[in-house]
Amino acid sequence: MREGLKIFKIGGGIIDDDAQLRQFLRALTHVPGHKLLVHGGGKGASQMLRDLGIEPQLVQGRRITDAATLDIVTMFYAGKTNKQMVSLLQAEGVNALGLSGADGNAIRAVKRPVKDIDYGFVGDLPANAVNTDLLHQLLKNGLLPVFCAITHDGQGQLLNTNADTIASTLARALAERYAVELHFCFEKDGVLRDVHDEASVIPQLTATEYQELKATGSIAAGMVPKLDNAFAALEAGVEQVVIEHALRINEPVKTVLCRS
Amino acid sequence: MREGLKIFKIGGGIIDDDAQLRQFLRALTHVPGHKLLVHGGGKGASQMLRDLGIEPQLVQGRRITDAATLDIVTMFYAGKTNKQMVSLLQAEGVNALGLSGADGNAIRAVKRPVKDIDYGFVGDLPANAVNTDLLHQLLKNGLLPVFCAITHDGQGQLLNTNADTIASTLARALAERYAVELHFCFEKDGVLRDVHDEASVIPQLTATEYQELKATGSIAAGMVPKLDNAFAALEAGVEQVVIEHALRINEPVKTVLCRS
Repeated sequence: MREGLKIFKIGGGIIDDDAQLRQFLRALTHVPGHKLLVHGGGKGASQMLRDLGIEPQLVQGRRITDAATLDIVTMFYAGKTNKQMVSLLQAEGVNALGLSGADGNAIRAVKRPVKDIDYGFVGDLPANAVNTDLLHQLLKNGLLPVFCAITHDGQGQLLNTNADTIASTLARALAERYAVELHFCFEKDGVLRDVHDEASVIPQLTATEYQELKATGSIAAGMVPKLDNAFAALEAGVEQVVIEHALRINEPVKTVLCRS
Repeated sequence: MREGLKIFKIGGGIIDDDAQLRQFLRALTHVPGHKLLVHGGGKGASQMLRDLGIEPQLVQGRRITDAATLDIVTMFYAGKTNKQMVSLLQAEGVNALGLSGADGNAIRAVKRPVKDIDYGFVGDLPANAVNTDLLHQLLKNGLLPVFCAITHDGQGQLLNTNADTIASTLARALAERYAVELHFCFEKDGVLRDVHDEASVIPQLTATEYQELKATGSIAAGMVPKLDNAFAALEAGVEQVVIEHALRINEPVKTVLCRS
């Protein structure tokens, strides 16, 4: 039987709130078994870009990662946020080890090809992006890998990569060796049947029900890419995908996605 | 017989020069056997502090690491410099993995006690600072650990630590398991008999000769703490300490320190 592995992804909001971040990390220490954490960036990087007079470059509403922006997000995500998180986990007695995709060649990305828009130093993840042997070694040695959303291309170029994509790519790759639960943690208790009613959490959501809700427009627009991603991970062999509140990971209220 | 391990420490100057840094990293790939790299910070962190309007705080000519400064040096050393170096080594086919002292609890420091001066968030290293089991696992798995000069106290606090001290503390701790060569790489070919003559490199320097040269004032003032540190490492079981030019690590010109 494959060992279990729980992959948690946390986003921006909680990273900007020190007390909430500590509460999440403390709750994580109570989750049994092998674990892996992926974190996005908070608002700090955007603030620092403004403080340094670097204007955000947006094309059709989407941020472009130029060389100066890549430097700052690498510093913020791989330096400040990642190391703070690792040191806080160490203080809780958890042997965390921070990684970018470059470290140990953990995640090798491909710079997004220029079509209509040049996104700059943004990395997409091919099917074979993950060095599963490295992660297996780290997990076997009792370590909790903590990933920031920076990868590399194997040619010396660091790349900015979406943290949700990193989490689901890790989950799919590690599903060959582990029974993987993928937990997307955010600021709501789960997927809501009614976006205006925080209590309308759907406890279990099948792919068929999701398609129906998506068709009627009931699912919040921001959740659609996350859920598309999540159901694709389930189809690719991930055992379970959970959508839950980052501050209530050990409580029963959450949405569990089901294949059918 | 213990396996060999070569620990290289590089300082600020080379980190600020992209072409020189690449030249050093390429040369490092030709060094056989287990290796470990420790890097200091370049001038980038000081520049960013100025750009953000954070004035360096100096007491009796020594820099104080306040909270804002710690944030910036952590971003720069653990984020930008460390990840750039790792990605460049990966491009050379070397499986590098970047670490701060917090990662895997690799190096646990103690915040410098406040006596006459409060140095702020600066970490000193006790005798048992190094997690040798972790480093042994990483080396055994063919990884090249790349350390930045950020440590932690095990209570959730990151600390700024001298990179020379990190290199010699790692060397001493790993000497129990490996035949360690400690290489301090800088911008001269070795220890000079005459500070005004770049060609006066001393090929071999014993502790006794060093004490004589120190007494006559022949050794450059800036070299004294480095060499005191280096001879202490030799006394503590490190096999060999080498002082050499960062751009000529595979050439014969260098100073090898000898116990007696």
